[in-house]
Amino acid sequence: MSESISRAFSKDALEAYAASQRQRFEEALGEFVEIPTISSGGAHRADCARGAAWAADMIRWMGGEARIVETPGNPIVHGMLQADPSWPTVTVYNHLDVQPAERADGWHTEPFTFVRSGDRYFARGTTDDKGPALTALWGAKYAAENGARINIQFLWEMEEEIGSPHFDGAIRAERERLRTDSVVVSDTIWISRTRPAVPAGLRGLQGFRFTLETGLTDQHSGVTGGAARNPVAEMCALVADCLDARTGRVKIPGFYEDVEPPSKQELEGLRKSGFSVPAFKKDHMFRSLRTNDPLEVMKKIWLQPTFELHGIAGGYQGAGIKTIVPPRATAIISCRLVPKMKEQKIARLVREFVRRKNPDVKVELEHGLPAYRGPITGRHADAIKAAMKFAFGREPVFVREGGSIGAVLSMERVLRAPIQFLGLSLPDHGYHAPNENYDWGQARGGMAAFAEYFRRLGAEA
Amino acid sequence: MSESISRAFSKDALEAYAASQRQRFEEALGEFVEIPTISSGGAHRADCARGAAWAADMIRWMGGEARIVETPGNPIVHGMLQADPSWPTVTVYNHLDVQPAERADGWHTEPFTFVRSGDRYFARGTTDDKGPALTALWGAKYAAENGARINIQFLWEMEEEIGSPHFDGAIRAERERLRTDSVVVSDTIWISRTRPAVPAGLRGLQGFRFTLETGLTDQHSGVTGGAARNPVAEMCALVADCLDARTGRVKIPGFYEDVEPPSKQELEGLRKSGFSVPAFKKDHMFRSLRTNDPLEVMKKIWLQPTFELHGIAGGYQGAGIKTIVPPRATAIISCRLVPKMKEQKIARLVREFVRRKNPDVKVELEHGLPAYRGPITGRHADAIKAAMKFAFGREPVFVREGGSIGAVLSMERVLRAPIQFLGLSLPDHGYHAPNENYDWGQARGGMAAFAEYFRRLGAEA
Repeated sequence: MSESISRAFSKDALEAYAASQRQRFEEALGEFVEIPTISSGGAHRADCARGAAWAADMIRWMGGEARIVETPGNPIVHGMLQADPSWPTVTVYNHLDVQPAERADGWHTEPFTFVRSGDRYFARGTTDDKGPALTALWGAKYAAENGARINIQFLWEMEEEIGSPHFDGAIRAERERLRTDSVVVSDTIWISRTRPAVPAGLRGLQGFRFTLETGLTDQHSGVTGGAARNPVAEMCALVADCLDARTGRVKIPGFYEDVEPPSKQELEGLRKSGFSVPAFKKDHMFRSLRTNDPLEVMKKIWLQPTFELHGIAGGYQGAGIKTIVPPRATAIISCRLVPKMKEQKIARLVREFVRRKNPDVKVELEHGLPAYRGPITGRHADAIKAAMKFAFGREPVFVREGGSIGAVLSMERVLRAPIQFLGLSLPDHGYHAPNENYDWGQARGGMAAFAEYFRRLGAEA
Repeated sequence: MSESISRAFSKDALEAYAASQRQRFEEALGEFVEIPTISSGGAHRADCARGAAWAADMIRWMGGEARIVETPGNPIVHGMLQADPSWPTVTVYNHLDVQPAERADGWHTEPFTFVRSGDRYFARGTTDDKGPALTALWGAKYAAENGARINIQFLWEMEEEIGSPHFDGAIRAERERLRTDSVVVSDTIWISRTRPAVPAGLRGLQGFRFTLETGLTDQHSGVTGGAARNPVAEMCALVADCLDARTGRVKIPGFYEDVEPPSKQELEGLRKSGFSVPAFKKDHMFRSLRTNDPLEVMKKIWLQPTFELHGIAGGYQGAGIKTIVPPRATAIISCRLVPKMKEQKIARLVREFVRRKNPDVKVELEHGLPAYRGPITGRHADAIKAAMKFAFGREPVFVREGGSIGAVLSMERVLRAPIQFLGLSLPDHGYHAPNENYDWGQARGGMAAFAEYFRRLGAEA
């Protein structure tokens, strides 16, 4: 490493860079999160297009090139900083779409109004995933301007929260322009603020909507109740047949068939991870959990599949009582899957079980994603470890991530490049929850981690 | 019966009266149902007060006296046609409050806009219970003006749909002014258009709200799912523990303890009632029922208690999937009760059962009403039979009513007068359902039936 590069990539220099950029970073994040780029439901397609245009302009303003890749759904932003054919290319993946949010869900502030409180930034999308996206961009700009010998490509999609339905097709069509030597994904969560973590795997997902219609309209529960079927109650019985809600154990035959028991090494990793049940409860504001044993909690959220009931639509849900027999009910469900489980097989098992238990229930499949298991050794993994230690003072632990990122599977298959994770979100950032936030500590450290990671990839090539 | 009275109370004369009044009746009903006198939730208190004022004016316009009786909730309208101390007094009970209604529930027209289509009148409240209230008023006016020797008192309450929480207290306080020799209630439904029916009993009601809170806000089902409790799924399990949804059988120990088996006479009445399962399904737009045996259907809706789940609030209920773990769920439930069942005992059994099954679930009691069993013999019952036969050409059958009218119990206890039912609603009128309607055939016949009933009560005294 030349002396000038060495000086530029010292911790002090990167801290000074971050401090000098803080105001611009906050202004950018504030503007960005105020565009409600909600992908689910389709009502915000224009906002998503506006968000994509904003993001492309931001890459240009940071000295790069950017273009909008249209898809049948929301667009993808493709950017590039530097373009020297003799250098390797790294692709940074983030997503710019966000979960829906309503003030009434429990937000203390308007979800799409940026609120800075000390070092914290509140708004939907701050941590998932606009904050990390901008952090990586700021780190990349520094690396590029300070001699890192690497081309840095940005792939920012806008349908991650709905299972990336058009990402695979889009990157297949653009495969030549997207050639890359490696990918780094920044959309994951640490175990705790003092313990950087890198996922060695992600859970997959298979969504379902179960619908039962026994009538056409609300009926009087005095006049018809007793003889009338009750679709909400039948749906409850069906859910209770599928799941032991107290333990989380799924009762559908064959559901666990392909689940592998954790290896000794994995269990060792979990034990060393610094996971704290009280902190987990506090970060997620749970009153109680299915178990209080830390190893069991980690197994349940990272290594085991789930059957989650998100809600039951249909019937009366207001104040007091409305004495109706409802005509229909829809249970909204998704299963998280672990490596080796196939979403098609789970879909088939669920359909067959439902048909046996209540043949009048219609099962619709929503998006499915397989689980992912990533490498935890090799030069890219080593560079991630070194960059995290450089920026945050501590080596990351390799654990698993309970969530699902469909794009990871696509990038692995289509781009055929090794994938690493450099996540910056913390458990208390409220992923998918009200009062989502990001903070300057993670942004500042993240800029340094990304800059150092890019320098290392360029130096090794 | 004098000749002039005999002429005035001929079928022809009453038909001519109805025909001459049709336009005024329709105008009045139209104005009345456009006042959204929704009692549940409390948001329409001003509309209820406006509806009461409108109704009192209507009684005055029909030649009677009327006043508003204030209660801690919605007022009661107290009216009187004629006031001769030497004559007996009959009290007509109706309610002027209505169920909530939203266009989106499946209405083809605006629920609070009066729409006449041929002989049908569509709007919330047309059949339950503003149409029957005005029908009785029109019948009373005719009786009074044509020599019936009876004072006709109106007691129109505005909290029937929420279980009449202030009716009992109000009539206790007004007991002296409300003295009456008998009561006639017009808020029940026939078995079919061609078969008048009179209920010999009503089911009671006990409402519940079960709430389980396991967290504070939505959480990410990938990040926390598996270890996080799922309150909606736990609520499903609890409901499935309480009820066999396919058969309607309640599984709470002791629930059926006080239910009496039907007598031979009652079963005979059911068999003769003209009840048709296909017509019941069609009128209420059911795709299927828990049983297709007519006797079983009648037992289930009239002679058996129920455990009805009106809906489960909490969680995500929109389109697609929102991958959250919800923080809380509320099951909205009511039980219909049959004679001898005590609502306090059912409340205790339910509370104890829930505590045993899931101690974290909070049970709130909503309004409770005992069931009612009425006399089917005696001179008032005979007068009802004769008046119905006079007006509709066929004697009514005595059956049961699956619904609950709290005021009936109060009037029996406080006014200590025999209670009869002269209902005019039909199964296809959509009680508590979208596209509620009333029709001219029932209004015209109802005016005649009430006029004849009042004449008979006056003649017999």
